[in-house]
Amino acid sequence: MDFETLRWELDEDGILLLTLHRPEQLNAFDLTMARELLEAFRAVKADDAVRAVVVTGEGRAFCAGMDLTGEGNVFGLDETLSPTAADLREHLTEEPWESGVRDTGGKLTLAIHDCDKPVVAAINGAAVGIGATMTLAMDVRMAGSRARIGFVFGRLGIVPEAASSYFLPRLIGLPRALELVYSADVVDADHALEVGLVRSVHEPEDLVPAAVALARSFVVGRSAAAVAMTRRLMNAGAGATHPLEAHRRDSLAMWLASVGDGKEGVAAFLDKRDPTFTGRATDVPDLG
Amino acid sequence: MDFETLRWELDEDGILLLTLHRPEQLNAFDLTMARELLEAFRAVKADDAVRAVVVTGEGRAFCAGMDLTGEGNVFGLDETLSPTAADLREHLTEEPWESGVRDTGGKLTLAIHDCDKPVVAAINGAAVGIGATMTLAMDVRMAGSRARIGFVFGRLGIVPEAASSYFLPRLIGLPRALELVYSADVVDADHALEVGLVRSVHEPEDLVPAAVALARSFVVGRSAAAVAMTRRLMNAGAGATHPLEAHRRDSLAMWLASVGDGKEGVAAFLDKRDPTFTGRATDVPDLG
Amino acid sequence: MDFETLRWELDEDGILLLTLHRPEQLNAFDLTMARELLEAFRAVKADDAVRAVVVTGEGRAFCAGMDLTGEGNVFGLDETLSPTAADLREHLTEEPWESGVRDTGGKLTLAIHDCDKPVVAAINGAAVGIGATMTLAMDVRMAGSRARIGFVFGRLGIVPEAASSYFLPRLIGLPRALELVYSADVVDADHALEVGLVRSVHEPEDLVPAAVALARSFVVGRSAAAVAMTRRLMNAGAGATHPLEAHRRDSLAMWLASVGDGKEGVAAFLDKRDPTFTGRATDVPDLG
Repeated sequence: MDFETLRWELDEDGILLLTLHRPEQLNAFDLTMARELLEAFRAVKADDAVRAVVVTGEGRAFCAGMDLTGEGNVFGLDETLSPTAADLREHLTEEPWESGVRDTGGKLTLAIHDCDKPVVAAINGAAVGIGATMTLAMDVRMAGSRARIGFVFGRLGIVPEAASSYFLPRLIGLPRALELVYSADVVDADHALEVGLVRSVHEPEDLVPAAVALARSFVVGRSAAAVAMTRRLMNAGAGATHPLEAHRRDSLAMWLASVGDGKEGVAAFLDKRDPTFTGRATDVPDLG
Repeated sequence: MDFETLRWELDEDGILLLTLHRPEQLNAFDLTMARELLEAFRAVKADDAVRAVVVTGEGRAFCAGMDLTGEGNVFGLDETLSPTAADLREHLTEEPWESGVRDTGGKLTLAIHDCDKPVVAAINGAAVGIGATMTLAMDVRMAGSRARIGFVFGRLGIVPEAASSYFLPRLIGLPRALELVYSADVVDADHALEVGLVRSVHEPEDLVPAAVALARSFVVGRSAAAVAMTRRLMNAGAGATHPLEAHRRDSLAMWLASVGDGKEGVAAFLDKRDPTFTGRATDVPDLG
Repeated sequence: MDFETLRWELDEDGILLLTLHRPEQLNAFDLTMARELLEAFRAVKADDAVRAVVVTGEGRAFCAGMDLTGEGNVFGLDETLSPTAADLREHLTEEPWESGVRDTGGKLTLAIHDCDKPVVAAINGAAVGIGATMTLAMDVRMAGSRARIGFVFGRLGIVPEAASSYFLPRLIGLPRALELVYSADVVDADHALEVGLVRSVHEPEDLVPAAVALARSFVVGRSAAAVAMTRRLMNAGAGATHPLEAHRRDSLAMWLASVGDGKEGVAAFLDKRDPTFTGRATDVPDLG
């Protein structure tokens, strides 16, 4: 795929290295990058050749946040509207996603959440504002030793966006989430590790290889259908209100697996051989 | 504000030091204190002069729990009723909060949850029963080295209240929450830190100053409207069932910020000057 | 109770030691064990003589997972069906639990979730697949130093089941949960402790005694009604979407306690004597 603000590099194992690529602007997020990232994650979902994704930034930053130097309304919102909670709910229940009241970052994190492939953030440098919140919808966050992460919205008189209020408490617990967003501090990699915001810290040159290796370990030799179902189950389960909801989805997923790649998986296990899976992520129906 | 069981001290930055003040009774929670705390947190919400709250206890205790020496039904419940889950749901869907079946502690924690200002607990000594559970609805818990925290309900044949079953698993995870309430143990400050119940432990004389400094860092120089929206978003997001719910609220909040203090925030950032925010917490509409 | 695949040993304090007992098959989970565990946990709920449960495995394994050597469909599912999310939802809203599309592991974890008594897992050895996921619905997990825990579903082309997508993120947070299930690794006791999957690691010979002692400390001298209500409140609260939901249940539970064992608890506290509780778990009504 060809983008203005991104690099898309797919290796032979189906690991996509997606690089935010506006290095002179510290990969600041403008409306072009927003649109391209949305396209990219929709393509990830639609393309069975992509098995997992690693997201990183070109140069010394991961993403320095919303590009505030852009012309017009940097938030991409239509100021002529005057939404209330009630009519916004209506606006937001359906497409077009291009509605003038939809938070731009949230469009992206919902697309990441929905992409059916494991996504690993390789946070190489500054990840600030939307640069921080976009990583929260990813499955795993790894940091380079020069990473710096900040939910700096409060300094600008705005609020944490990109559905970060859903993700952040599930990643690090509500009290730490509140303190990070209230303080609006930019924290370094070690602090991010300590509070659980990233899983590991790496030397700068080791970061992307480690992230690619982890992503590869999640999918190579695995059923793409089972990986997609597992991701959907876990994401849905984290928001479920009762285990019965998970049980319903599990039951459908396990039934589908049992007549699909699970048959081969069990046979291969009993034969003491490697399985050959054929299920595709794009074949998985709605799990409810 | 003038109270019988509380001290209300508001500094020039809008940091309210709210002190539980029945030191001879170890600040035990009686029905007067219950009513006054409810009034106090409603006043916090209604008063734009209050920017953040620190709650502590006078003397050697934070709050020794429900005052069991009071006359009549110490729980404040109407024993002539015979509620079922169904009619209780009806009783509880609306005011008056003074319904004879409403848990007293829960009235308070819901008011704290709803107060639109960051609240820091400075747990200086024993925090037992409602003295422990009231802190769970606060944003941050800091402990003095002499703090002792106990969810001791099981020893009395009663249950954890004050919506602690909602808050505690979100603070420290379900397994630790279960063990704390099953054991009914009173744990010391270091144990509370280890399990994540408090964020930090301080020398007794440093506790309140540290709590006030943290609260101040959350609000001074910030938009009160953005702080209120951030708190509502995070609290709602922690209970949301899908990131789309957060996205809807985020979108409305970000739109409101973008036509309000966010404009000044971005302008000040680009001008490399300090912003002057004017948004008020009491102006924030329902975010849905 | 008499089982083919389980041992049921109830001591004088009401602590039930429930042992998975197919040691030659490493306690692999077959459809007989599935049925018997379901019966056992329904009996736990129905029998006031049982106050708490410890689950362990006979011999060197805890449970080596689904018995894949069984004849027929090892998953216990009816392959002639062709469910969709919509009709599965219908299938699953009611009994019979023996529906051909219900995940077998989920039937069990829902019964554990619903059993009204604290349940402690004493993971003595390999706990793999359903052997791992069944423990997630238990209240506390303790590991012997030889324990090994693996969510290995991905290796077989299947998905994590037994409502583990609900439980696992609430136990260890979503990112660690995702990594454990994507990796499909079998982790040792120390790793399980580090990520919070187990609360403590014990020498092999100390494991069951420590688990029994912990279970005993949760219930001896306590009101069985209050323990049951506490467990229901905490389990429901962990899935609630707003503290008001917890407040409604709390209010009913506290009201019931205040006219029941709470009266005795308060009286005994004021008299400085041990309370004598009489409330029974089977008397607790639906809390909503």
